[in-house]
Parts: sequence; C-alpha cells; structure tokens
Amino acid sequence: MSGRLIGIGVGPGDPELMTLKAARALASADLVVHFAKAGGTSHARTIAARHLESGVEELPLHYPLTSKQPRNGHSYDDALAAFYDAAAATLAARLDAGCTVAVICAGDPLFYGSYMHLHVRLSPRYPTEVIAGVTGMSGCWSAAGAPIAQGDDVLMVLPATLPEEELARRLADADAAVVMKLGRHLPKVRRTLDRAGRLAQAIYVERGSSAAGVTLRLADKRDDEAPYFAIVLVPGWEKRP
Amino acid sequence: MSGRLIGIGVGPGDPELMTLKAARALASADLVVHFAKAGGTSHARTIAARHLESGVEELPLHYPLTSKQPRNGHSYDDALAAFYDAAAATLAARLDAGCTVAVICAGDPLFYGSYMHLHVRLSPRYPTEVIAGVTGMSGCWSAAGAPIAQGDDVLMVLPATLPEEELARRLADADAAVVMKLGRHLPKVRRTLDRAGRLAQAIYVERGSSAAGVTLRLADKRDDEAPYFAIVLVPGWEKRP
Repeated sequence: MSGRLIGIGVGPGDPELMTLKAARALASADLVVHFAKAGGTSHARTIAARHLESGVEELPLHYPLTSKQPRNGHSYDDALAAFYDAAAATLAARLDAGCTVAVICAGDPLFYGSYMHLHVRLSPRYPTEVIAGVTGMSGCWSAAGAPIAQGDDVLMVLPATLPEEELARRLADADAAVVMKLGRHLPKVRRTLDRAGRLAQAIYVERGSSAAGVTLRLADKRDDEAPYFAIVLVPGWEKRP
Repeated sequence: MSGRLIGIGVGPGDPELMTLKAARALASADLVVHFAKAGGTSHARTIAARHLESGVEELPLHYPLTSKQPRNGHSYDDALAAFYDAAAATLAARLDAGCTVAVICAGDPLFYGSYMHLHVRLSPRYPTEVIAGVTGMSGCWSAAGAPIAQGDDVLMVLPATLPEEELARRLADADAAVVMKLGRHLPKVRRTLDRAGRLAQAIYVERGSSAAGVTLRLADKRDDEAPYFAIVLVPGWEKRP
C-alpha cells in the first residue's frame, strides 16, 4: 500500500483564510513539506503554523541559491529541475513507505505555485489530492474592497516581468487585470497603465490579507519601490447596473 | 451605532472548501442573505447550510424574471438595477438598526459575483468586510489535478459569450485560459480551441468540487451540451523545468 500525496493551499496569508478541508488534511499528515528560500522560512509554514500537529515531522525544501547566469554550462533552469527531481525522489521514498505526505502552499497549489513541480513528477505514480486555496489575488481585492470583474469582463493575470510594449498592448485589451510580481518592475507598470488611461483606477496592494497590509491608489503611491509579491489591481466592470 | 455588512465567499461547492473565517463570520450574523433564481434555491445557501446557526433569520433575494428584451421601454438592465436598489434599501434598513448582515456568495464575493452589486451600493455608507473565498475555477483545476499557470504565464479568464472571432484572437494570445459560462456556447469554444491548436490540452469540468463532478478532455466529450456553469481549462506552463 503506497501512501498519499496532498497538495494543500493555505490561502493568501491570514490563517483564518485557510479552508476547513486544509485544516483537516494537515491534521492527517505524516509529513508536512514546505518550500522556502535558502536560509529563509516558508510563508506557507507561517500561515499554517497553528494547524500543525505538535511534533509532526516537517521537511523544508530550500530553493537552490543559483543565479540566473549559466555556470559551468548549467543554467538556473537546470539547477531548479535537479532540485525538484531530488525533492520528488525524497517524497517518493516516503510515499512508498505508506506515508501521507502534505505539501503546503501559499495561495492555491496549482496557480503559480512551486507545488506544481512536485505534482507533475509524483501524481502519475501515487494517489494524489489537491485542496484548492484562496489565491493571493483574491486576498488582495477583498482587502481593497475592489470588485474585480463582472458579467462578460475579460480578466487578465499578467506578470510585471513582461516587456513594456507587450504589457501595454495586453493592458489596453483587458477589461480587468491583475499585475503580479511587481518588485523592480513597478515604474514600468505605472507607465503602461498611464499610457492605457487606467492609472486612475489602479490599486496597489502589498500583503493584502495581513494586518500589516497596504492598500492605496497606485497614483497616490509616491515612490517606485515595491516588494516582489506586491500586486496591482485594475478593476473592470465599467457598466454597473 | 450602525451594523456591519459582510460579503462571505463560501467557495466552489464542497462545504469543506469554506474558510475558517467564513464559518466564524456566519455564526456571528443576525441576517443571512443569499441570491437565487426566481423559484430556485441559492447555491451558496446549500454550500453554507451546515454552518448556519439554527433559527438564524434568512433573506433570499430572487432575481427578477425578466427577459433580455425591452418591455414598456424598460430593459433587463433597468429591471436588474431596480432589483439591486431595492435589495440594498432592505439591507440598509437592517444595517441602520445595528444588525450584522452577511451576504453569502458561491466562490469569491468580488470575482464575477452578484454580491458586488450590493457592495457598491452599501460599502460607502456602512462598515464592510469582504471575506475572500476559493473561486469556482480553482475548484475545477484542483479537481482536474491540472496545473493552470506557472512562472511568467499570462492567464486569461474569458466568458464563452464572446464573439467567435474575439474568442479565437484572445485564446491565440494566452499562455493559459479559463473559459467560463459555457452553456450553449460549447460548440463555439470547441471550434476556436481547435483552430488555435489547443483542443488537445483543453479540459472540460462540470461541478468541479462536487462528488458528482465531471472532468474529461474536451476532445473526449462527445456531445456539445453543457450547463451554464461548466468551464473549460486550457493549462499553460509549456516550459516545465
């Protein structure tokens, strides 16, 4: 009898935005796995902390500290692939031993999350369940009280890393948009929204579902500095009956 | 002392996918409000049933039975606006009396939900909280075990109601897509995905997070009938390290 893999979404940050199913699944896990930066702690671990069984075994997976520059012929992607391969092998050994292995993920496991790399490697071989979670963007527009899309709106989720011209073209073609991974790309995002005539409606959100969160009109944000996980919301829904 | 308005997302269908915060907020409500078709019962009410306090007051809001054709000079939009105005006035009277009024919504309150119509009318006047929920689309891709987007993928949420040429143009320009409100538009969606060379990857999902749910490759779905709330997923993430 092999074990079971569970990908658990723990939501956008407020521990109360975990689902009942996530809390129950965590209590059933033999091993709780989470991703973190090298030397850092896992955001998902922090969110889920109060629901971990006391003394449950944990396995932190630390991303390799590799620059995006090739080194010795190996790219960052190669290093990442090797990291995910090794992590999947470690988990497979525990699944072979019959364990219930829970991988916790901030937000939703299959929406821009690292869990997906384990899922594609392990779900063809082991019974697997994915527990949907509240996404970071839902947490942000809820904190901002900003209706994001309605009716026949087209909503686009865009990474701020896109080239400026592409970002401008896509924003001009969207009823509603969420621009993720702001970081150093904020000045570019501000410029493209201004060009598209959407700057006045755009909302800047940092740590949406945390008590220390920041929500303000992007036009009112004075500086052009933003953390990597900050996002910009461009609400749609022009025709409000 | 005026009362408090709470928009509560109860998730995609499985009652276990409600958040801890939603369950607690429901227990604190003096009045629980839900939308339903005329003569029907509310999907959100069904999802939240086990968390309603016994005997708590409920207010079902039934959408007006009005066709999209103008009648006596009044359009469907006019009828809807009058319906939301009247509902907001009813809730305002209860908020003025100090009640905690909870409006429950399937999925997430500010993502294509009817709650938004009450939110824009009431939140400028009353203390308001929005509790994010797991969206229907998260429930669907989790049930399908389908990683939807990763890295710098552009994700589009598209209503199947779009004209065929526009749908084709947008699908050709998306890394990942979710096509909602399928219903009678399924044949058109199938044709456009075929033209875009994406039919083989497309996944059809009906009632994603319910035990009676259906998940299959769209190419394997024989007929061209679908309920209104069925969706098609087009997973992105071509480059998997």
